[in-house]
Amino acid sequence: MKHGARTVSLIGAGPGDPELLTIKAQRLLCGADVVLHDDLVPNAILALARPHARVENVGKRCGAKGITQAEINERMIEAARRGLRVVRLHGGDPAIFGRLAEEIDALEAADVPFEVVPGITAGSAAAAALGVSLTDRRKSSRVILVSGHRATQAAPDQTDWKEVAREDATLVVYMPGNNFTSLARELLAAGLSRAIPAIVVSHATTPQQRHCRATLGTLHDVPRLDSPAVLLIGRSLDRVRRKSRDSVALAFEEAELLLSAQ
Amino acid sequence: MKHGARTVSLIGAGPGDPELLTIKAQRLLCGADVVLHDDLVPNAILALARPHARVENVGKRCGAKGITQAEINERMIEAARRGLRVVRLHGGDPAIFGRLAEEIDALEAADVPFEVVPGITAGSAAAAALGVSLTDRRKSSRVILVSGHRATQAAPDQTDWKEVAREDATLVVYMPGNNFTSLARELLAAGLSRAIPAIVVSHATTPQQRHCRATLGTLHDVPRLDSPAVLLIGRSLDRVRRKSRDSVALAFEEAELLLSAQ
Repeated sequence: MKHGARTVSLIGAGPGDPELLTIKAQRLLCGADVVLHDDLVPNAILALARPHARVENVGKRCGAKGITQAEINERMIEAARRGLRVVRLHGGDPAIFGRLAEEIDALEAADVPFEVVPGITAGSAAAAALGVSLTDRRKSSRVILVSGHRATQAAPDQTDWKEVAREDATLVVYMPGNNFTSLARELLAAGLSRAIPAIVVSHATTPQQRHCRATLGTLHDVPRLDSPAVLLIGRSLDRVRRKSRDSVALAFEEAELLLSAQ
Repeated sequence: MKHGARTVSLIGAGPGDPELLTIKAQRLLCGADVVLHDDLVPNAILALARPHARVENVGKRCGAKGITQAEINERMIEAARRGLRVVRLHGGDPAIFGRLAEEIDALEAADVPFEVVPGITAGSAAAAALGVSLTDRRKSSRVILVSGHRATQAAPDQTDWKEVAREDATLVVYMPGNNFTSLARELLAAGLSRAIPAIVVSHATTPQQRHCRATLGTLHDVPRLDSPAVLLIGRSLDRVRRKSRDSVALAFEEAELLLSAQ
């Protein structure tokens, strides 16, 4: 341990269901002095922290307004150097569309030791919640995880959907937003079939879970669902049952049956 | 509950570390009457089953020799219809390169209810074990999960690596085998740089974990590592430290330093 700093734990909290925490994440969270968490981590998970732990929302949306990544890094480093047990709690898996890389860079630059604890990522959670597989020997031989909200410095513009258009892949779009018109148009223009299932899942694995089943041909008509959401596209989703848990989806599926006849 | 059959739990056991089970997987495993598990699930996890539970290895490799998927399906259905609590325990995440789709088809055809419990997939586990992120706003905007061992009916031949060659993606190859020559050649032919990191991780998150850090230019020289392994390729892995936990990797990295100078 350099500078006497404690190891910072960079942890994935999973999709929202407290039972989908890993045992390791639960153990570290229960022992933490400081918990710095994303917006998306529900209270039922934060409640696992000890009563005297400092629990701070460092999320970009409704947490500490205007907090920068540099400030999050500073808080982790400062607390670890004071010998406190720091948990940085990300939604889902920290290695998939989180800011994990930047946090690791900062901790390494400060010579603060760290460990990464993986979490269930939103794509896996959504598939499980729908009762489907992301791959299928007969239909889908790869999974492509992509972010609808592009913020790479290398490519600040829109995702080029044509590049990920493949009949034998399952596409998982994180942070898909609410307007799927251009996405669907580009995938169709690249040659994908109108009949390929496209399913939006909101708040997967929580009591607020909702989903809408569409196809590429009807995706532009999907009603607005709450964030966080994930959009799954691919033939391996064929078996998502038309009978669904919520009326939004039921109403939508009636429309879909009319629109997507073959 | 149709036919009085109990709900079958199709569960991901994660990568091997018993602490990387989800709390839900642990609860269901502890309450199971019958556990049908893959080869890759370690004894430390199976030991969570109750003493009188029936625990069967239905893996293809060293378990019940010659067991077919149809037989696995039959065992699940038969036990669930007898009112037993059945856990089908997959390594990693069942929805990613497992036989989940076929098991769901069989359970639905038999009118046996089921639930899917996601697990930590090998790609997430390997990245966490190496202390890196799979995505990086500055370097990698998507993750492509692909199986080195192709068994799709649609495309029984070799993976076309050129299709997944992208400078700004992280490629995760499940079941990569031990011969990376053609894979590396095709990715280089598609225009990827020789300097892109390529890391094989074997037995991620277990005491047997080993890894070798190479680049696309030196990947053909990577020594043979045990199964299960996963191969990660992409610029987001730049920060995997040259100092590593094991001597195989150390020896290899010395070679790599000589081979990959820029």
